[in-house]
Amino acid sequence: MKIIELKKSVTASNDADAAALQSELAGKGILMVNIMSSAGSGKTTLLERIIEDLGRTVRIGVIEADIDASVDAERIEQLGARSIQAHTDGMCHVDAGMTRAALDEMGSNDLDMIFLENVGNLICPAEYATGSHLGVMLLSVPEGDDKPLKYPLMFSTSDALVITKTDALEYFSFDMEKCMQRARSLNDKIRIFPVSAKTGNGMKEFEEYLLAEMKSLKQV
Amino acid sequence: MKIIELKKSVTASNDADAAALQSELAGKGILMVNIMSSAGSGKTTLLERIIEDLGRTVRIGVIEADIDASVDAERIEQLGARSIQAHTDGMCHVDAGMTRAALDEMGSNDLDMIFLENVGNLICPAEYATGSHLGVMLLSVPEGDDKPLKYPLMFSTSDALVITKTDALEYFSFDMEKCMQRARSLNDKIRIFPVSAKTGNGMKEFEEYLLAEMKSLKQV
Repeated sequence: MKIIELKKSVTASNDADAAALQSELAGKGILMVNIMSSAGSGKTTLLERIIEDLGRTVRIGVIEADIDASVDAERIEQLGARSIQAHTDGMCHVDAGMTRAALDEMGSNDLDMIFLENVGNLICPAEYATGSHLGVMLLSVPEGDDKPLKYPLMFSTSDALVITKTDALEYFSFDMEKCMQRARSLNDKIRIFPVSAKTGNGMKEFEEYLLAEMKSLKQV
Repeated sequence: MKIIELKKSVTASNDADAAALQSELAGKGILMVNIMSSAGSGKTTLLERIIEDLGRTVRIGVIEADIDASVDAERIEQLGARSIQAHTDGMCHVDAGMTRAALDEMGSNDLDMIFLENVGNLICPAEYATGSHLGVMLLSVPEGDDKPLKYPLMFSTSDALVITKTDALEYFSFDMEKCMQRARSLNDKIRIFPVSAKTGNGMKEFEEYLLAEMKSLKQV
């Protein structure tokens, strides 16, 4: 398994770097998805499920960004997907330059779909474009339905919200309707997918959304 | 309820500012506790329980630091404790200057114990001293027992680890023994308290720890 130690990018404009990377990947028909959430919301478990469900027909690669450790990349490699562990040198996000460095090291030209598992928190990743085509945020049921009130930037900049661990809904006082309303009041275009990666509930709808986005990119 | 908009402190040394604040509070016999965790680990719920249990004999104040919103300070005020909502201007942590500004605005001279509920993430708050006497981190059972591997700085710099939502242990695959071992391998002095703020299990031990720390400060 590859590990890359990333350093802060020294560049005039992260937004310009991100736009360039996004356009290059689109030209090759490769969809990149930026997966963002708090620590412990189930990013890696969701990706494991997607790889199991789609991995036979879609060539998937995963960049696992973390401050430290390489447990997530090991989990992904066990399922046969390509992956690289990117250490962020203490930083709480990845930017476009860091993403490009990780892609170069991993190799991506023969892939169809790349997931960038961003550093686990709802704050910094919302502030840095990475070159991804889709921003997908996860919120797990145990975290609570009040999170849109506290992290408005993350909710307002994401294309999709995946509400994870819905199998635990009976156990926690999580008001699904209220949570969706709060998210939509910040972002009226956000797509919302309640899922359980454990039972598989709702996964099909989310995977179809990813496949449709990938196809629309390949058709351009 | 008071709300204060904090700006990044412009100062030569945050560590020196933190040491000065810590010493001033100690001189007044006031214990300040820095509460850190991911979003949704149950910081506010834990504080609500502590206020219910200790609030009649201990004068408690709470600084609620958040990027936005004021829902947490409202919850605390409903229990009759003094509180202030501190907005961090997009920053993922509070430093000593910001903490002092919030304390000045809230008023703290007649308090015994102050909780600083830091911004919800396991990364930035570990890097900035605040002037608190104790650093207490929370990890909730649904987040998973692998978190010490991913956020080593937070575990190695905290005085105590409170493992929250233990009432959900049966529902999640969380290896308590393994989690404790991982935390202790990073920090052999860390005090660990498994609790459920919902059922009250384990709360007494944690509250006795806080009271003992407060008393040792008042005796100096």
